[in-house]
Amino acid sequence: MDRSSCLLLFLAIGITCVATQECGYEKCRSLPIKPGMINVHLVPHTHDDVGWLKTVDQYYSGANSSIQRAGVQYILDSVIPQLEAKPERKFIYVEIAFFKRWWDEQDEDMHGRVKKLVDKGQLEFINGGWCMNDEASTHYNAIIDQMTLGLQFLNTTFGECGRPLVAWHIDPFGHSREQASLFAQMGYDGFFFARLDYQDKANRLKLQNMEEIWRGSPNDLGKVADLFTGALFAHYTPPEGLSFEILNNDPPVQDDPRLHDYNVDERVNTALNRSVEQAKYFRTDHIMWTMGSDFHYQAAHTWYKNMDKLIKYTNPGNKVNLLYSTPSCYVYHKNQAADVKWNTNNTDDFFPYADKPHSFWSGYFTSRPAIKGYVRECNNFLQVCKQLEVIAGPLPFTNGGPSSQRFREAMAVAQHHDAVSGTEKQHVAYDYAMRLHAGAVECQEVVSHALAGKMKKGSVEPPAAQFCAYLNVSICPTTEENDHFSVTVYNPLARQVTGHYLRLPVNGQSYTVTAPNGKPVKTQMLKVTQQTAKVRGPRGNATSELVFPVTVEALGYSTYLISRATRTTRSLFMPQAETNVISMAIPQSPRMREDIEIHNEHLSLIFDTTTGHLKTVTNLKNKLILNVQQAFYWYNSSTGNNQDSTQRSGAYIFRPNGTEPFPIHTKGSVITKVVTGALVQEVHQVFSDWVTQVIRLYDGQLHAELEWTVGPIPFKDSLGKEIITRFDSDMQTDKKFYTDSNGREILERELNHRLTWKLNQTEPVAGNYYPVNSRIFIKDNSRQLTVLTDRSQGGASLKDGSLELMVHRRMFYDDNFGVGEALNETGVFGEGLVARGKHYLMLESPADSSQLHRNLGEQLYMAPAVSFTPNTFSTQDWSNNFNMAYTALKRELPSSVHLLTLELAEEDTALLRLEHQYQAADGGTPQTVSLQGLFEPFEVVTSSVEELTLGANVHAEKLHRLSWNTQEGTTGNVSQRCWDPSSATVSLKPMQICTLRFHVKRRW
Amino acid sequence: MDRSSCLLLFLAIGITCVATQECGYEKCRSLPIKPGMINVHLVPHTHDDVGWLKTVDQYYSGANSSIQRAGVQYILDSVIPQLEAKPERKFIYVEIAFFKRWWDEQDEDMHGRVKKLVDKGQLEFINGGWCMNDEASTHYNAIIDQMTLGLQFLNTTFGECGRPLVAWHIDPFGHSREQASLFAQMGYDGFFFARLDYQDKANRLKLQNMEEIWRGSPNDLGKVADLFTGALFAHYTPPEGLSFEILNNDPPVQDDPRLHDYNVDERVNTALNRSVEQAKYFRTDHIMWTMGSDFHYQAAHTWYKNMDKLIKYTNPGNKVNLLYSTPSCYVYHKNQAADVKWNTNNTDDFFPYADKPHSFWSGYFTSRPAIKGYVRECNNFLQVCKQLEVIAGPLPFTNGGPSSQRFREAMAVAQHHDAVSGTEKQHVAYDYAMRLHAGAVECQEVVSHALAGKMKKGSVEPPAAQFCAYLNVSICPTTEENDHFSVTVYNPLARQVTGHYLRLPVNGQSYTVTAPNGKPVKTQMLKVTQQTAKVRGPRGNATSELVFPVTVEALGYSTYLISRATRTTRSLFMPQAETNVISMAIPQSPRMREDIEIHNEHLSLIFDTTTGHLKTVTNLKNKLILNVQQAFYWYNSSTGNNQDSTQRSGAYIFRPNGTEPFPIHTKGSVITKVVTGALVQEVHQVFSDWVTQVIRLYDGQLHAELEWTVGPIPFKDSLGKEIITRFDSDMQTDKKFYTDSNGREILERELNHRLTWKLNQTEPVAGNYYPVNSRIFIKDNSRQLTVLTDRSQGGASLKDGSLELMVHRRMFYDDNFGVGEALNETGVFGEGLVARGKHYLMLESPADSSQLHRNLGEQLYMAPAVSFTPNTFSTQDWSNNFNMAYTALKRELPSSVHLLTLELAEEDTALLRLEHQYQAADGGTPQTVSLQGLFEPFEVVTSSVEELTLGANVHAEKLHRLSWNTQEGTTGNVSQRCWDPSSATVSLKPMQICTLRFHVKRRW
Repeated sequence: MDRSSCLLLFLAIGITCVATQECGYEKCRSLPIKPGMINVHLVPHTHDDVGWLKTVDQYYSGANSSIQRAGVQYILDSVIPQLEAKPERKFIYVEIAFFKRWWDEQDEDMHGRVKKLVDKGQLEFINGGWCMNDEASTHYNAIIDQMTLGLQFLNTTFGECGRPLVAWHIDPFGHSREQASLFAQMGYDGFFFARLDYQDKANRLKLQNMEEIWRGSPNDLGKVADLFTGALFAHYTPPEGLSFEILNNDPPVQDDPRLHDYNVDERVNTALNRSVEQAKYFRTDHIMWTMGSDFHYQAAHTWYKNMDKLIKYTNPGNKVNLLYSTPSCYVYHKNQAADVKWNTNNTDDFFPYADKPHSFWSGYFTSRPAIKGYVRECNNFLQVCKQLEVIAGPLPFTNGGPSSQRFREAMAVAQHHDAVSGTEKQHVAYDYAMRLHAGAVECQEVVSHALAGKMKKGSVEPPAAQFCAYLNVSICPTTEENDHFSVTVYNPLARQVTGHYLRLPVNGQSYTVTAPNGKPVKTQMLKVTQQTAKVRGPRGNATSELVFPVTVEALGYSTYLISRATRTTRSLFMPQAETNVISMAIPQSPRMREDIEIHNEHLSLIFDTTTGHLKTVTNLKNKLILNVQQAFYWYNSSTGNNQDSTQRSGAYIFRPNGTEPFPIHTKGSVITKVVTGALVQEVHQVFSDWVTQVIRLYDGQLHAELEWTVGPIPFKDSLGKEIITRFDSDMQTDKKFYTDSNGREILERELNHRLTWKLNQTEPVAGNYYPVNSRIFIKDNSRQLTVLTDRSQGGASLKDGSLELMVHRRMFYDDNFGVGEALNETGVFGEGLVARGKHYLMLESPADSSQLHRNLGEQLYMAPAVSFTPNTFSTQDWSNNFNMAYTALKRELPSSVHLLTLELAEEDTALLRLEHQYQAADGGTPQTVSLQGLFEPFEVVTSSVEELTLGANVHAEKLHRLSWNTQEGTTGNVSQRCWDPSSATVSLKPMQICTLRFHVKRRW
Repeated sequence: MDRSSCLLLFLAIGITCVATQECGYEKCRSLPIKPGMINVHLVPHTHDDVGWLKTVDQYYSGANSSIQRAGVQYILDSVIPQLEAKPERKFIYVEIAFFKRWWDEQDEDMHGRVKKLVDKGQLEFINGGWCMNDEASTHYNAIIDQMTLGLQFLNTTFGECGRPLVAWHIDPFGHSREQASLFAQMGYDGFFFARLDYQDKANRLKLQNMEEIWRGSPNDLGKVADLFTGALFAHYTPPEGLSFEILNNDPPVQDDPRLHDYNVDERVNTALNRSVEQAKYFRTDHIMWTMGSDFHYQAAHTWYKNMDKLIKYTNPGNKVNLLYSTPSCYVYHKNQAADVKWNTNNTDDFFPYADKPHSFWSGYFTSRPAIKGYVRECNNFLQVCKQLEVIAGPLPFTNGGPSSQRFREAMAVAQHHDAVSGTEKQHVAYDYAMRLHAGAVECQEVVSHALAGKMKKGSVEPPAAQFCAYLNVSICPTTEENDHFSVTVYNPLARQVTGHYLRLPVNGQSYTVTAPNGKPVKTQMLKVTQQTAKVRGPRGNATSELVFPVTVEALGYSTYLISRATRTTRSLFMPQAETNVISMAIPQSPRMREDIEIHNEHLSLIFDTTTGHLKTVTNLKNKLILNVQQAFYWYNSSTGNNQDSTQRSGAYIFRPNGTEPFPIHTKGSVITKVVTGALVQEVHQVFSDWVTQVIRLYDGQLHAELEWTVGPIPFKDSLGKEIITRFDSDMQTDKKFYTDSNGREILERELNHRLTWKLNQTEPVAGNYYPVNSRIFIKDNSRQLTVLTDRSQGGASLKDGSLELMVHRRMFYDDNFGVGEALNETGVFGEGLVARGKHYLMLESPADSSQLHRNLGEQLYMAPAVSFTPNTFSTQDWSNNFNMAYTALKRELPSSVHLLTLELAEEDTALLRLEHQYQAADGGTPQTVSLQGLFEPFEVVTSSVEELTLGANVHAEKLHRLSWNTQEGTTGNVSQRCWDPSSATVSLKPMQICTLRFHVKRRW
């Protein structure tokens, strides 16, 4: 009896209607499992890319279908009635970016129907992030955010029954260990993926090791990060011949003997054969079939009708038991096999992914460097925006007014495995960028409003903040056009930032800068470089950059007032550093053949006079010297015309047509200019008319900054080019190098080697590339050369002492994995996209390096946010009317503790994540932080504090993960609680993230 | 409140549930029409070919989808819930061959749901035949049968609400006047089609004459055959850009302003523009949009969701009113416009169809001659089978046992406009043939059983009948292998047949044939010809054919006993005619150069000595002489490589690349043999090694028989060939010629002329071709040369006195209308299909001709059915044990009255159709027939007689057709009743068909 009928009866004769909930694993217990048979879990699923060949909204609506016949609205429209028709039918849904769009368009009646299906366990959410994020080019901060966005929607909308129990990354092109660790911390009981190296897969099949316990953080978090992980048998599609998708060609089950082509026998035999074949490779009585694929189930009835029949005819009399199921029920029944001891994977991840000998999916580690950079930058600003919503309170607008929501969603969408990965069509890449921009613009309003609220002292309203998105190419109308302006710098870290340098494009000769304390700040003026002028096109007219350091308190801002110097002011204040420029365009005199050096108090960089390349780096304090040559090279992309394979380099695939890259600079010195001064030293290098670099040392900084500008990559020779920067040092590194996993833990890599299986290396370059999300390093006993990146890139160490990063790529053929376009970014001006980015180079001892690069990374990825206003006040008036500095934190957190996220959950409820950012191997030790009296604008209502799982959708105390028997004992259900309500403190072990939700009691 | 809820309430508190019926035009009155606006009737429809690129069952199930993604089961599966979801939504369904398959697979619950939708007028059946039959190559008998099969299913299943009110031939490639006449007689109020000559359409658009009253039988049936007929505006598809089919690319209505690509304004503007544009060409406030196309609505939700939105956003504030509707409601509202006087079309039909200047769809008039011939043959046998089910009573088997049902369905399927038309893929053509064969085999059991029942006198069971399907190529194992056998000949006519010649393949030298009266029958032996041996391949070993005439009473049988003659018997009986053979293989002596003549008492045929071609035909009785040369020619199929057009000849299109065909015979005489004898004279002609002909005169017959054998058409020169037979006479015919319309009324044709619009002739050959379903003739004042065909063919008279028929065609390119295959029938032996058929030639005065060719046609298309048994009895014993002759008719019907169909409707209920087979112009006069005591095996229970419409689904007295105002007065709702219950007689005016259903009271 359905609810409406029941309701009528209730009205008529008083029967009470009770809805039964069968969520969690309850629903799995009642499945028609048959012990001793091959139980085949048919998992009806659709894989809905949150943008790829079409934009996310085109996929949702089904528009632009000449590209792809895919409309997600129709999937959900059509699945719901099919589930309602038969209680045994199941469906899983994954991508909440789509589900939320659909949900928002449904009426209350449909909301009720869907809730009923969720409560009954027929419709199950799996994974449940906003998207199915990429794992190779994503930062953990953004992963956590995007997962939280989806999981919180599910939690709010469906409660416990909407909670995904299993993670599902069936399409991403390789899998990071950090992803597994994060999923485990989010409380998932299982994790499935489809793509792993074909050699690895063959080996696992042979060893019945497709499913195992993956230890996501063996040296830090331990069992908390253990996760039952399964590699799928047949990609994520149905077994061959058993797809019942309306757009596929497999035969339906024709069971009407009155018609021609009755094929029940053939269909059943196919099902039996596929079952028996697959069961050979899997432990326990259970196997899983992924019944669906990309954008399947737009006409769900074709699937269910045929699967109903397949089950009906296959099961009787056979030792195979097909049943509708879900990944969570599959995991549950795997877990029930008490006698099985699962293997563990303690070390490895699943990078790089090759699906065949010459198809290594390591091109996308770098593809579309501009969007990769923009995504990282946006993550930074989104954190600022979210923090300020908590600090200043939500904007006093009705729903739909400016908030961080749009930016959260845009960022979540951008984490999709065809978004930040760079594997989407060009028009889709533009759409992602547009969404990010729109989100950022809305957040600018939020930030502006929040800052104004804190700045305002009396009745005078602070001027509205303006933002300059193009500071990297020296464009900022506010600073260019105004003689008097303010700069307000917000610091999202939980510690003071000092010695952070601003570079503001200006047109004047000289400027005075006044700090919040009223004192003048030392500045230095630099000419805008030719390279910048070239990159920025017709926009921006600044001739110079004004450089000065700023200091900002934790979760606070500082306002600096800047005025163009008149002769008078110039004589009054003269903290401006002299800038000396040696132009190298003049033919070098013999005197100049001496080595060129720049240095600050920490580092000295020496350049080879003949080539102009970096030659030696010296850590002056620790007396570490490294001979390290740095230059740019290009790999010629294979066009697939050699004997071994037709594989071409493309958006996904990196396949150079040789092992040695070509140097971009061939003769003479690359150095065109050396700039020295009190605040910054620069060496300007021109490697070619499309590759330049500025190497900088800022006063007081421990690292050197290498700002590379690459592009337009030449296309007239029709050769695909993949550009790298390479550091060749004299270190003996024993084939080892180190890369981060999504910006968190560090993994050791070894040339031509995999940790858990024997590699037959078929691509000596591409097969050694790994994702570098934030850092890569090589080391010997005394020295560690660490390079931090400002975006995700592919990186490798192909020779001892060498370290390379791919910065840009352009090619002219599609690599044949569906995107259907060559990765040929033509950019705004048509000639080819120019990418500009930074590498941050440190030379320290291995012992010192780890904490130093952790803290540098934290500063880079949570850099201060800068806003501007034209200024009509005098300095005095400004400081009379407005607060020039502020901190929301009453005490700084220790350097090991990173304030990962702080955001509004509801109007007076905040979500806070604190992270121990050191690994034990970094020397990290447990740390305790008190929340009492920590925040300036509000008090944490300690009685309201809820400790949550990482995805913020489950109370930590209510989480009961499945326990698994392994060769090393039981794993899985352990808890590592961080919140002590009695002391109101948070305790963190290395790498632990503590997720808390609490009411805030505002102090105003 | 739905019924189940209501039922619960009823149980609980006694509320009574009443289902409301809104069928007929009732539902149309409540449509949200807005007078003064453009009311746009959105008609959701799917066009489901009953076989084309895939077989009918593949289309039903969705199998073989690499060819086409089409599965009709999913259409109905998916439409039903969509209709249930919103009461204003409508859907029409057309092809009952599919609907019945689906219905049979549904459970009772679904049956109830569908009935409810039908009762509410949401699901409306339109047309309602088993298929949407072809109009160019179908015989009216088969059209009536296939329509009846569908309409009776609807009537039985859904009652009055299931009755289609409108005919719907949106895809057939040209439209016959007889089809309109039959539809009118079936009681339809309107008729829509899409395909008409592009010039005709342009003209009609200009004159606002797309909709008119078509007079289907202006000179005979009059108003009874008048039909409101509309040519659709935009083929049968939605207006451009407004398809919401999952497999199409038009944009959905994106009405969520939160998403990108919001397009409501554009979608509404498109709808408005399309409405306003179309409305210009149509009268009244109403226009119709066909919202669907081939196999659309497999995912019906994509359609309804978007149409709902289109209606929602378009209507407010605009002078356009979109509404869900049906063709019948559209017709109803057209009819409501009291002030409009509709034009009438009194004369023309819509053949041939050209969609552009060089694309005349006149190839399919002949395409696949073998299946066209087989379909005609099967119609004949099906009538026999159905008659015998009535005469002998249904077979005493449970449901599913042998009956005519399978054959009825196979024949109905074969009438589809991509079946008998020859425009299907080869594998589908094989499937149709297989279905016909299976149906025929089942009917052989029915016939065998029925005959045995009538033959049996006492306790001895008659031997089971055997059938010989290959008599046309002299194959019959029973007659070849047995020295003694019986032949039982059943005559399905309501009159005695006499002088009907059998030709039985035998291996003996001489045979005795004993008639039912025990007397010997005169025979003649002929050698099996070389041509036959070539055609029949390895099957069949007969060396001779035994020829003899038979006589059979109306609806009765005669058994002839045949024995191979021993010397003794040979001397006793010697009625065997001498056969003289002159072999022309011998070089002709001067003596032979005289004209060759064969003749019987009615006709003399003289052949030219030099060429061997027919030269002169003389009607000896009436002293009519016609110089008429007959020979075979081929048109070279265009391959589209000339300047005017890229159109090629193909399955649909006839496009010769020149106006003059090439003669197939070029030198010497074609005559190889002249056979004379008392029963049959034959001239054997060999035109080439792939074209031969035997011209025959049988003793006593008024016509000459020309048996042509064509094929394998040579392919090594890669030239497509379209083979014609042409008769060139000395008559002055003033460009006029005459063709039948589906085997019934005769239409006058004129070279390079259309009756109702001015033709710009662009294809002088193909543009003058017309369908010849049964006969074509030319005439002058005194003579009429009539040729009857044994199947549908294309025919023309391109010169005065000339008459040509296309008999076979083979080409090597697809003509680009979807079939995707060249019409290149390779046949069983791979070399190319050999087709064999007959033309029946009469030379009579025009006054005599019409009734003579009517009666000859009746005999040809309702020829006797012949079965065999090996015989172990003596002649005496046979006649002692078995009845050797029988008639089910106690008195013959007059020659003007054709017993069109006699079949079982239910176990003791028969359906009878009597037809006046003369037109008034033939001299037909009203005729009355009494049913009392007419049938031998049963009495018609006269009190039970119901007079029905032609489709047998409506009581004639209950039919109220809509009346239409025309320039010539009111038309439409008139009745022409045929049954007089008081006298128990049927009265028939010329061309009238009387359809009666009655109980039979069996006499046993």
